Amino acid sequence: MCWRPFRELSTTLEESPLDPRFDWLHASAAAVDLEAREAAISRQGELTKPPGSLGRLEDIAIQLAALQGRAQPALEQVRIVIFAADHGIASAGVSAFPQAVTAQMIANMAAGGAAISVLARQIGASIELIDLGTVAPVPAHPLIRQAVIAASTANLAEAPAMSAEQLAQALAEGAAALERARAAGAELFIAGEMGIGNTTAATALTCALLGLPASSLVGPGTGLDRGGLARKQALIEQALALHRDSLADPTEAPIQALAHLGGFEIAAMAGAYVACAQQRVPMLIDGFISSAAALVASRICPGAADWMLLAHASAEPGHQAMVQALGLRPLLDLGMRLGEGSGAAAAVPLLRLACDLHAQMATFAEAGVAPKGD
Amino acid sequence: MCWRPFRELSTTLEESPLDPRFDWLHASAAAVDLEAREAAISRQGELTKPPGSLGRLEDIAIQLAALQGRAQPALEQVRIVIFAADHGIASAGVSAFPQAVTAQMIANMAAGGAAISVLARQIGASIELIDLGTVAPVPAHPLIRQAVIAASTANLAEAPAMSAEQLAQALAEGAAALERARAAGAELFIAGEMGIGNTTAATALTCALLGLPASSLVGPGTGLDRGGLARKQALIEQALALHRDSLADPTEAPIQALAHLGGFEIAAMAGAYVACAQQRVPMLIDGFISSAAALVASRICPGAADWMLLAHASAEPGHQAMVQALGLRPLLDLGMRLGEGSGAAAAVPLLRLACDLHAQMATFAEAGVAPKGD
Repeated sequence: MCWRPFRELSTTLEESPLDPRFDWLHASAAAVDLEAREAAISRQGELTKPPGSLGRLEDIAIQLAALQGRAQPALEQVRIVIFAADHGIASAGVSAFPQAVTAQMIANMAAGGAAISVLARQIGASIELIDLGTVAPVPAHPLIRQAVIAASTANLAEAPAMSAEQLAQALAEGAAALERARAAGAELFIAGEMGIGNTTAATALTCALLGLPASSLVGPGTGLDRGGLARKQALIEQALALHRDSLADPTEAPIQALAHLGGFEIAAMAGAYVACAQQRVPMLIDGFISSAAALVASRICPGAADWMLLAHASAEPGHQAMVQALGLRPLLDLGMRLGEGSGAAAAVPLLRLACDLHAQMATFAEAGVAPKGD
Repeated sequence: MCWRPFRELSTTLEESPLDPRFDWLHASAAAVDLEAREAAISRQGELTKPPGSLGRLEDIAIQLAALQGRAQPALEQVRIVIFAADHGIASAGVSAFPQAVTAQMIANMAAGGAAISVLARQIGASIELIDLGTVAPVPAHPLIRQAVIAASTANLAEAPAMSAEQLAQALAEGAAALERARAAGAELFIAGEMGIGNTTAATALTCALLGLPASSLVGPGTGLDRGGLARKQALIEQALALHRDSLADPTEAPIQALAHLGGFEIAAMAGAYVACAQQRVPMLIDGFISSAAALVASRICPGAADWMLLAHASAEPGHQAMVQALGLRPLLDLGMRLGEGSGAAAAVPLLRLACDLHAQMATFAEAGVAPKGD
């Protein structure tokens, strides 16, 4: 175990705002293609339907056109990357499941039995599993990339969750995953996660970024009972109080919050999201954990949210506040709260149908149909 | 044109409650398979995820198991039937589009250029187009079934929309379409529609069935302006007043309302829905017009709604009241208001993913994952 003491970490980041390990995060988000957007809007107006009658399916096609820089967007190649890691806070009893489940579920994902495995197969997405550090051993498997930072984060209610070096590693793993996705031709990037205890970290992180108390965001995660929920809330409050001073500088707050309150998988997702926005890859955000990472990314990299679509409204009650802060609208609202990227994968067929309608519908002129008001 | 005068129609239906043309409507809805439902619930509890974490995707798999009578439901074969017809009321200026568009859009659907054509192709659904009567000619095409009842209904603000004989024909066309769908192996039935002016008919019908004023349900349809909307509302109020006495008998009200206020395509959809419930075919209800037909079907045939899933919440404001009356929850809420069955087709991938997750996910035992609380 290699946790730096809390004060040392804070000092490192605060006194070295130009710490070169974090330099890449400060590159701007790419600009979206307004010309492609206009062309897509124009085409939508010519298709044989009342204007606006396909609702958000029209908006999706237009947004993807702007992001992909082509009037007719497509989503043949979808990449799903699952970031997995354990959390020190889990030993405090904040999950309905034992911590060994993180490693067991990575193996289940690799074997094809997890929800995300089924969904990825059905939607024809490529999948990559990244083990950033688990308490129990993860078996070697061609789908699993071993990128272990530590066996788990530290207990964020007692110490910073990770050191600056660990944070830099996790962020870089995310960016590297996006690089591999690009090399594989990904037209859409989905990050999923697995980590027993990670709704606690995501909640604490979001509370810190939005200045909200734990009570306004805390929820049952995988299924905590009332007693567990009270314990979880108290631990988050303890963590927020412990780390408050370290998060005081607004320019450093997103990165400091990741280090003090986050998880390896959450940091990696945030890194991947920043890289997506910098490198013009549209991303589909999943649920509660993903949105916490997306919030960090949008705070680190202004404009990053332009590159995000939000797949669904999580059943975890605190998700609503994240969604509002991101300025995104969820596509689905199915009461899902599994994580793994499952809500995002479930939304992919809708995005594809939006592209298909946009590309394949006849125009009024082609079909000889009288347009509105003529 | 063969409209019976208003009083004659009412008399015919009221004095002949056992009119044999309508006998088939009174057969009961089939019972759902509670054993298959229990087996599906049990399986959901064993899959490697926190209980309930897939939200409505779990509910869908369980409901489809109950309807299909098998613990592991499937939706390979999906049938979409588009019922098209013109409306006498359209001449009163209740649509943003000219009436000729009904026939033009049937041709566009057959040629593959309409939204529903694209969606059916992408989801691999078989499609059938049924022309129940249009003012403009519809070209012959292998996908188009000619089943013309009349060039259009009568203007429902001035006379009953159709005669008892016409109603019987339309209902029977719906049932026959379901019979062909069954013969083709359909595991899910979707009815769509095309008919300029049909939100006026559907609104009037729903007002009559729910005892609501036009003002509480009327909406812009394909895109009426404020003046058009006021005209539409006034015409619906006029129609409701004109036909009030004919709808007074509660046992006959659903059928009388169809005859006096409906459309050929709406009646055919209602007939198809009743037949689905009687013959154990799960149906996916689309939007505003489909829900009006579903409401009629559920009033004619108690228990019919057990066989329905509701695809989406229409952007047409009156849809909300229909949804509540049906006791269904929409799966999607994307601001769609096109009709054609487009919202239902867009929801099919979600239903399929629900079945895939249910069938293909590993159980805790199979995957060696520790279940909750162990």
